[in-house]
Amino acid sequence: MRATVIHGPHDIRIEEVPDPAVRRSTDAVVRVVNACICGSDLWAYRGVAARVPGQRIGHEFLGIVEAVGSQVTGFTPGDFVLAPFVWSDGTCEYCRDGLHTSCPEGGFWGQVGSDGGQGEAVRVPFADGTLVKLPEETAGEEKLLPSLLALSDVMSTGHHAALAARVRTGATVAVVGDGAVGLCGVLAARRLGAGRIIALGRHQDRTAIAREFGATDVVAERGEAAVEAVRELTGGQGAHAVLEAVGTEESMRTAIAITRDGGAVGYVGVPHGGSAGVDISQMFNRNVALAGGVAPARAYIPELLPDVLSGAIEPGRVFDRTVDLAGVPDGYRAMDDRSALKVRIAF
Amino acid sequence: MRATVIHGPHDIRIEEVPDPAVRRSTDAVVRVVNACICGSDLWAYRGVAARVPGQRIGHEFLGIVEAVGSQVTGFTPGDFVLAPFVWSDGTCEYCRDGLHTSCPEGGFWGQVGSDGGQGEAVRVPFADGTLVKLPEETAGEEKLLPSLLALSDVMSTGHHAALAARVRTGATVAVVGDGAVGLCGVLAARRLGAGRIIALGRHQDRTAIAREFGATDVVAERGEAAVEAVRELTGGQGAHAVLEAVGTEESMRTAIAITRDGGAVGYVGVPHGGSAGVDISQMFNRNVALAGGVAPARAYIPELLPDVLSGAIEPGRVFDRTVDLAGVPDGYRAMDDRSALKVRIAF
Repeated sequence: MRATVIHGPHDIRIEEVPDPAVRRSTDAVVRVVNACICGSDLWAYRGVAARVPGQRIGHEFLGIVEAVGSQVTGFTPGDFVLAPFVWSDGTCEYCRDGLHTSCPEGGFWGQVGSDGGQGEAVRVPFADGTLVKLPEETAGEEKLLPSLLALSDVMSTGHHAALAARVRTGATVAVVGDGAVGLCGVLAARRLGAGRIIALGRHQDRTAIAREFGATDVVAERGEAAVEAVRELTGGQGAHAVLEAVGTEESMRTAIAITRDGGAVGYVGVPHGGSAGVDISQMFNRNVALAGGVAPARAYIPELLPDVLSGAIEPGRVFDRTVDLAGVPDGYRAMDDRSALKVRIAF
Repeated sequence: MRATVIHGPHDIRIEEVPDPAVRRSTDAVVRVVNACICGSDLWAYRGVAARVPGQRIGHEFLGIVEAVGSQVTGFTPGDFVLAPFVWSDGTCEYCRDGLHTSCPEGGFWGQVGSDGGQGEAVRVPFADGTLVKLPEETAGEEKLLPSLLALSDVMSTGHHAALAARVRTGATVAVVGDGAVGLCGVLAARRLGAGRIIALGRHQDRTAIAREFGATDVVAERGEAAVEAVRELTGGQGAHAVLEAVGTEESMRTAIAITRDGGAVGYVGVPHGGSAGVDISQMFNRNVALAGGVAPARAYIPELLPDVLSGAIEPGRVFDRTVDLAGVPDGYRAMDDRSALKVRIAF
């Protein structure tokens, strides 16, 4: 089959790779229908996150089950399924707690020895613990596919940020970052009943989506000016809940500074700034909590799926370009230079 | 009157100072019956936290109301009262939210221009918002006074750490630090129903109190060895809830490392290590939350007081020495060289 392979910074290729097959009795093989490129893939693309040359890439996909191992009980060939961005056994203590990302048997699509999501098919370990079945009839609903696909990572991650930031009915929420995850964070905050949502972002095409998703205010400033703007909008207090969806030192510093005393930052931007932006003295004096991390999408998909199916939320709006597999390298370039927000791959 | 004054590092004196009086209509004057020396006073004593020479010191006290301003409605002379370690107006949004430490009108006993708790009397701003009335008959109960006094800071702070760390019924809890706050954290965790409590501390006389307070295990190791010991005790996972009651880089690093994936660190040790001990990548990958800060004791005292009065908790066990006012400088020396755990001052 053909799949996306990363050979080094800015070196993404589409290559012939071995066809996946059931290797363990708990495996399934899924023929990919839709996949996408994630903002976090860009860390690898830019060489900030290390990859072994020749490693696969891509961790968001949905598709049709093609084969299952003898111990798989929840799926049969032909099932339409969604994969969260990590696999997990579904039976360990962490999985039972809803923290599938800490499953000792878990792994990340594209890690050495595994298939990535940006390929024609994927061997799925622990199919029963990992995959979520989608209604059969939705497989043909082109309009719905982007929003279903968004549950694989960005929408679940935005939801994780909102929960970690303790978004409650009526709360004032601020979202740092206008990438796909930040925008999904706005949507998640609205879904959880936020009374006011301040989106921090500089890109008008993106903050326009933030407004569609429920943002009531947009702050285009950065750094100290952004902190002042949010304080001005909130009577000097800051926001009860702040979603940090970037992962730099500056974004973390901003997020903490705009949180109301007693509030929380829910951070889901992969931290590339170390702890330098974590102002612990300010957090201490103002009782600002810091929570979040890698989102257990597998736990959230069943909760979010009905809202996608009903049309109550449409996270697929974050996709602004669709390519075929051959177009994936162009898709990376477009996301890298910010001419695309998020690129979907249709097979 | 006579009060404790700090002139510089290791220079604590008892001096004649002006008698406090009602200055604003919301003030009260309290004649101090019991006060104490806090581990956090040692930061000033050691010169780590800056103080203006001649500043008062001490922030924990209980006593008898001697005078009240015309607008004070909740107290009359003769009332037996307890003060939390900060004052607050009791009417602002933060006070109504239970975050009295963020009251814009609030302040810290001993700050420039105010009386400290380690003196014969204290002018109390916003008496109605600050003080908590104690049952009249308890004023004469010598055995009860230490535990009532502990509510002023250390027991409320331990409780704050336990709440911030999300201690729940049956949870495995670890407490980093065997000072008075750490020990009160053990007591708070037990009170909230922790199933297992691992106390980290090297001083046998202190960990003996931890065991009295409910610790089921004691880890005397520090650093990496402590992390290994806690992991061994918890099947490799760490504790659901970790209370950090020291405030150094090493203690924060240990606290995060021994937290179970998905768990939380409740930190109440005044952070003197900056954010260097905050391993944000580890927190991200394992979904470890960090919450806490300066404890809103005023919010907790009404909840904790009945348990002290009933004898259900006896936080006053942390006092192992009592001095009179003249003995305060000796008390500082004893806490500084760790020959005393916590020193009570009886007037």
